[in-house]
Amino acid sequence: MAHCSRIDKSTAWQALLDCKPEDITSVLNHKRLIDRTIAAGGGLSYCYAAMDADDATLGLLGTAAAELDLAGRYLALAGGSMANPGEQRMALHHLSRGQLAGSVHAGSKDLGAFYTSELTRFSEFAKAIRSGSIRGSTGKAFTRIVQIGIGGSDLGPRALYLALEQWARERGLLKLSASFISNVDPDDANGVLAGIDPEATLFILVSKSGTTQETLANEALVRARLASQAGIDARRHLVAVTSETSPLAKNTAYLDSFYIDDYIGGRYSSTSAVGGLALSLALGPEAFTELLAGAHEADRLALEPDMRKNAAMTDAMLGLYERSVLGRPATAILPYSQALSRFPAHLQQLDMESNGKRVDMHGEPLRYPSGPIVFGEPGTNGQHSFYQLLHQGTDIIPLQFIGFRKNQTRFDPEFQGSSARTKLNANLAAQIVAFARGQSNQNPNKLFPGQRPSSLLVADELNPRSLGALLAHYENKVMFQGFAWNINSFDQEGVQLGKLLAARVLQQGGPQDEALEAYGKFLGIL
Amino acid sequence: MAHCSRIDKSTAWQALLDCKPEDITSVLNHKRLIDRTIAAGGGLSYCYAAMDADDATLGLLGTAAAELDLAGRYLALAGGSMANPGEQRMALHHLSRGQLAGSVHAGSKDLGAFYTSELTRFSEFAKAIRSGSIRGSTGKAFTRIVQIGIGGSDLGPRALYLALEQWARERGLLKLSASFISNVDPDDANGVLAGIDPEATLFILVSKSGTTQETLANEALVRARLASQAGIDARRHLVAVTSETSPLAKNTAYLDSFYIDDYIGGRYSSTSAVGGLALSLALGPEAFTELLAGAHEADRLALEPDMRKNAAMTDAMLGLYERSVLGRPATAILPYSQALSRFPAHLQQLDMESNGKRVDMHGEPLRYPSGPIVFGEPGTNGQHSFYQLLHQGTDIIPLQFIGFRKNQTRFDPEFQGSSARTKLNANLAAQIVAFARGQSNQNPNKLFPGQRPSSLLVADELNPRSLGALLAHYENKVMFQGFAWNINSFDQEGVQLGKLLAARVLQQGGPQDEALEAYGKFLGIL
Repeated sequence: MAHCSRIDKSTAWQALLDCKPEDITSVLNHKRLIDRTIAAGGGLSYCYAAMDADDATLGLLGTAAAELDLAGRYLALAGGSMANPGEQRMALHHLSRGQLAGSVHAGSKDLGAFYTSELTRFSEFAKAIRSGSIRGSTGKAFTRIVQIGIGGSDLGPRALYLALEQWARERGLLKLSASFISNVDPDDANGVLAGIDPEATLFILVSKSGTTQETLANEALVRARLASQAGIDARRHLVAVTSETSPLAKNTAYLDSFYIDDYIGGRYSSTSAVGGLALSLALGPEAFTELLAGAHEADRLALEPDMRKNAAMTDAMLGLYERSVLGRPATAILPYSQALSRFPAHLQQLDMESNGKRVDMHGEPLRYPSGPIVFGEPGTNGQHSFYQLLHQGTDIIPLQFIGFRKNQTRFDPEFQGSSARTKLNANLAAQIVAFARGQSNQNPNKLFPGQRPSSLLVADELNPRSLGALLAHYENKVMFQGFAWNINSFDQEGVQLGKLLAARVLQQGGPQDEALEAYGKFLGIL
Repeated sequence: MAHCSRIDKSTAWQALLDCKPEDITSVLNHKRLIDRTIAAGGGLSYCYAAMDADDATLGLLGTAAAELDLAGRYLALAGGSMANPGEQRMALHHLSRGQLAGSVHAGSKDLGAFYTSELTRFSEFAKAIRSGSIRGSTGKAFTRIVQIGIGGSDLGPRALYLALEQWARERGLLKLSASFISNVDPDDANGVLAGIDPEATLFILVSKSGTTQETLANEALVRARLASQAGIDARRHLVAVTSETSPLAKNTAYLDSFYIDDYIGGRYSSTSAVGGLALSLALGPEAFTELLAGAHEADRLALEPDMRKNAAMTDAMLGLYERSVLGRPATAILPYSQALSRFPAHLQQLDMESNGKRVDMHGEPLRYPSGPIVFGEPGTNGQHSFYQLLHQGTDIIPLQFIGFRKNQTRFDPEFQGSSARTKLNANLAAQIVAFARGQSNQNPNKLFPGQRPSSLLVADELNPRSLGALLAHYENKVMFQGFAWNINSFDQEGVQLGKLLAARVLQQGGPQDEALEAYGKFLGIL
């Protein structure tokens, strides 16, 4: 089979453009559900029974996936290919949870060994903090961490911590609670600081470059607040996660430093020290190791070349069909789990920052829509909010549900004949069917057109292993879509212009720019 | 001028369809910014200088707004017209903050007087709790409230509380902290309960009908937990906000009950007892009264018939232009204020549940897109996340920025030559200009096409008054858009089918439905 570099160069492309959405109002049954479920690692399954692609469409997508050599390009990426040519960088986040394609070196440095040695270092550090053998400068044991970071240094670690907080508390593993400071708005840091005991708090400063404006400003604010409290030695309350070449590295202003490198992008860094230090401190290094194992298992399953046996690849190609063929503008992420309350915000970054691009690897403008808008809130909350538009709005928005068979916490008394868990999952089952099937009604206002496609990621329990797999599933899905569109999913040039202009507003003598001056004055800063 | 009922029946419609987006790469200057700023009440201003509608387009939109008689229909609604014919209800949320069009009666009942008397009752109750004259059943003063509600009984009150929490703390007004339980997932309630002292906690149960499944299940869980703690009398730790005819009303299982009615929909209920009780308890009745005053001021300004002098109407018509004329799928809400972290989630419900409709008031399918997808996160956080797609994605998404000139909290040390506030607003100014103007570059990957329209809502400070105006601005914007599309913005038939099917899954003997059974089994509940 001849390979191609972009979906519209596949022999299947023209036929795909002619595909019509499958009529899904009456196809849902037990057999289809089993036929369309793929193991995704860590006990997670991906089920696309309620997607509106028939077998012919799936066949075309599978042909395109093979011609695009998605599995081969993934293996090459994991083995150290130049996946991010714009920044001349490899993309090695998979390596932070295990080898997929042999060892990878940068010069003489074995990067897998580097990630493993940092994992060992921060695991040991976490044990010492959790046991109380390292304490705050006034002698109190640490009971709280505050992570200071923004973007990838915030959203992923925050989402993962919240996903496991109750799980760990219920099992007696939650030794330190975590809070997060991200926004340069000082009300963020002041608000977090108002609720904590600084003597028992360890601050984790996360910035790969060591130059992130927001993060340094927040560090300065925190240090000023610590300095105002007699007896606290800030150097014993801050640790850094940064690159070895940054100003924060090996700096006596910090209790310790843990290292990352340029080959793991911010939004892919949750399984490196960026997420690992906080999670190991809060939940214990064992839980974090389990999370890595779940992610690695998902990564290995995603190597399968046959699309229909590969959960992340099927999810990716179906998403591409919805977006680039059917022209649907968005995807909603709907976890039926309160613990995943911030997981959609992480995926919003992961997907929109990776694939919200308008030119391909060769700088050619794309002739089809690329990455979708990603948004979502937990169910059943969303049912009482934006689901109205999903059911009866004028656009069709493909949905991704996430569900679990068990609770994280044990207390779940029956009420009106069923447990809350049963009610939760009854709602999830009902929504999938309602969106697909719709309902006729003589009153047009009460008519549901149906034909709203959805897929479902499901596991027995939301725990470190299934969460790791869930995280990796989405990373791999986004990666495969980037391959298919032939865009660089690992740079983010779109954030540069704003930074540049903000610096101009702040420069001595003013911005020397009419528009910036007008808005700066209007906002009271010039 | 002849009136029309729907935007596509306006004499301006055909000309609007021929409008091209204004080239906004070089139009931003001080004069345009002043010319295109309208007072929105409560110290809030609406600025649309960076929107891509030229004066001709604005003229057409103004003509359409006049022909649609938006101001007249608003006045009729406020005066008690049947704004929600599907449910045979008026829509009286404006009356919860003040009269706009005389008194409104249901039968012999003066509804304004009713809302005012409930406001007085819960204000007095809040004073008694805040002063410690009413205490928990074990004698402890209440220091925390937990609101149990979902959808409109959760998102608005939660967003408003978070918006004012630091403001109140800084001023010594935060007497009770608030938490929220919404999801039927028991991990939600268990997680909230793990962090509080039940002896010092007052639970506020909010359900208009008194039959909301999630809310009753969560009440049962909370009562079971309270029962397991010796000495706590649950009846003295729960209050209800409900309708006078619900099973929760005048029920000795509650310490007290406060009333709402069917004329204020859930998503419009933040300024009734639904939001007012919690806010009055947490921040004090005076702060809540200020919030009402800000909202009322915005409501009054929105009565202005001339679109270009009416902030909410201009915002509505520009949104309609972006959505129904230019076909843009979504609007991003980008508050440069961490305190507004959940405000986009509230607006997501407000807008998508109100205007995510596919038929008009007469049951006729709409021939143009109605309500957009609404999503957003605070800046500068979003800059490090999904802004990549906003700057360089393949779709243009109109943006709504929200900004403030001052902090809520006082501590804001200078760092690298500027305060954090200055940095925050420098970023906001920079983004508006970057989105509009873009930047050419020989490297297509570093090229910004610009032409990304945005508007800005700005006030000196985020306080109860400006927050009330902000809330009302969006309510009125959504209302005007509903008028222009001639849809019912006050029902939510799209949530019914899911409820019905969930009840079938839970019924004795199973759902008797192949699809529901298959998913129920897959999810481990059948």
